[in-house]
Amino acid sequence: MPVSKNFPYEKLIFFATENVNKFNEVRRILAEYGISVAMIKVKTLEIQDDDIEKIARISALNAYRETNLPIVVEDAGLFIETLKGFPGPYSSYVYRTIGLNGILKLLENVENRKAYFKSVVSFCEPNGVVRSFQGIVYGEITREVRGEGGFGFDPIFKPYEEPNKTFGEMTIEEKNKFSHRAKAFRRFAEWYRSVYIS
Amino acid sequence: MPVSKNFPYEKLIFFATENVNKFNEVRRILAEYGISVAMIKVKTLEIQDDDIEKIARISALNAYRETNLPIVVEDAGLFIETLKGFPGPYSSYVYRTIGLNGILKLLENVENRKAYFKSVVSFCEPNGVVRSFQGIVYGEITREVRGEGGFGFDPIFKPYEEPNKTFGEMTIEEKNKFSHRAKAFRRFAEWYRSVYIS
Repeated sequence: MPVSKNFPYEKLIFFATENVNKFNEVRRILAEYGISVAMIKVKTLEIQDDDIEKIARISALNAYRETNLPIVVEDAGLFIETLKGFPGPYSSYVYRTIGLNGILKLLENVENRKAYFKSVVSFCEPNGVVRSFQGIVYGEITREVRGEGGFGFDPIFKPYEEPNKTFGEMTIEEKNKFSHRAKAFRRFAEWYRSVYIS
Repeated sequence: MPVSKNFPYEKLIFFATENVNKFNEVRRILAEYGISVAMIKVKTLEIQDDDIEKIARISALNAYRETNLPIVVEDAGLFIETLKGFPGPYSSYVYRTIGLNGILKLLENVENRKAYFKSVVSFCEPNGVVRSFQGIVYGEITREVRGEGGFGFDPIFKPYEEPNKTFGEMTIEEKNKFSHRAKAFRRFAEWYRSVYIS
């Protein structure tokens, strides 16, 4: 039963992102749960912090205050063990600057290639309470760029669960079987459906 | 003549930082202008943005709102030309993760070693207007770590104006002759003195 159901449309939510690739991944996942999602460009406040859960939470709170819509935000990052978690919360900036080749260069002659992608999905309820849902996928950084699918660091990351392919070599459907983002959004969707969709 | 002089002490201001090295540099510069400065730990809001002027400005506004003190904030970064400005606004995070050796590795076999440090000092006046002052020092990234002075990326940066030494090989007094931070704080101090100190 809905706890506080004063959103205009229960089955339609908004995803604050400017990344069409992310949106396409998320749209398919939420559809499995009977939830429609619209892409919305809202200037969310993104703070600097090593903890992406905190970044997502504050961003969700601000996005809700600005729009009064049922709005979901996501923050994600690639965390490389031997680089102390770099590029972490700043993955998007690092991708735009040193890029895939920068990461490969930093890992030249490095044996430990363990890394994980982490996604945190945050959603602000009408009462101001923010709910956060996390997804992690563990894997390794490849030794070369492989594949043209996905986006960001996908072509240099292969998950342990499918070690023959990088995320860049997968279709959206395949990536959604394993990805951090898919896991986080499935957790969100299960919760959302139970609370807001009768 | 003072425009809006409702700060408690004109000759004493506060510098929001947790970095003792920064504080020591700034204390000496401001003393030249007859301004005393106290270190203050205030949780300033640091947003994610490629533009450090914007980061400093929003941070100053929030610091003033929280404390109602004459409080100065600084944001600074190292911008490496061939890395599209990386590490830029995230220099502190990058220093803590991949460190000096990470930067040197990214520049292995790279001829173009041009880089600059940039500092933006922001100060929120009692009327809510934020003043920002910028300082830049151009130079090059060395091929090895040199010196144990300074902090952050100082041991791999040598300014064009003193190409025989890295910032890490300089005393505070020497570094204050050339540094981005010294330039920005001198500009701030000249303005502050003319407006707030009779």
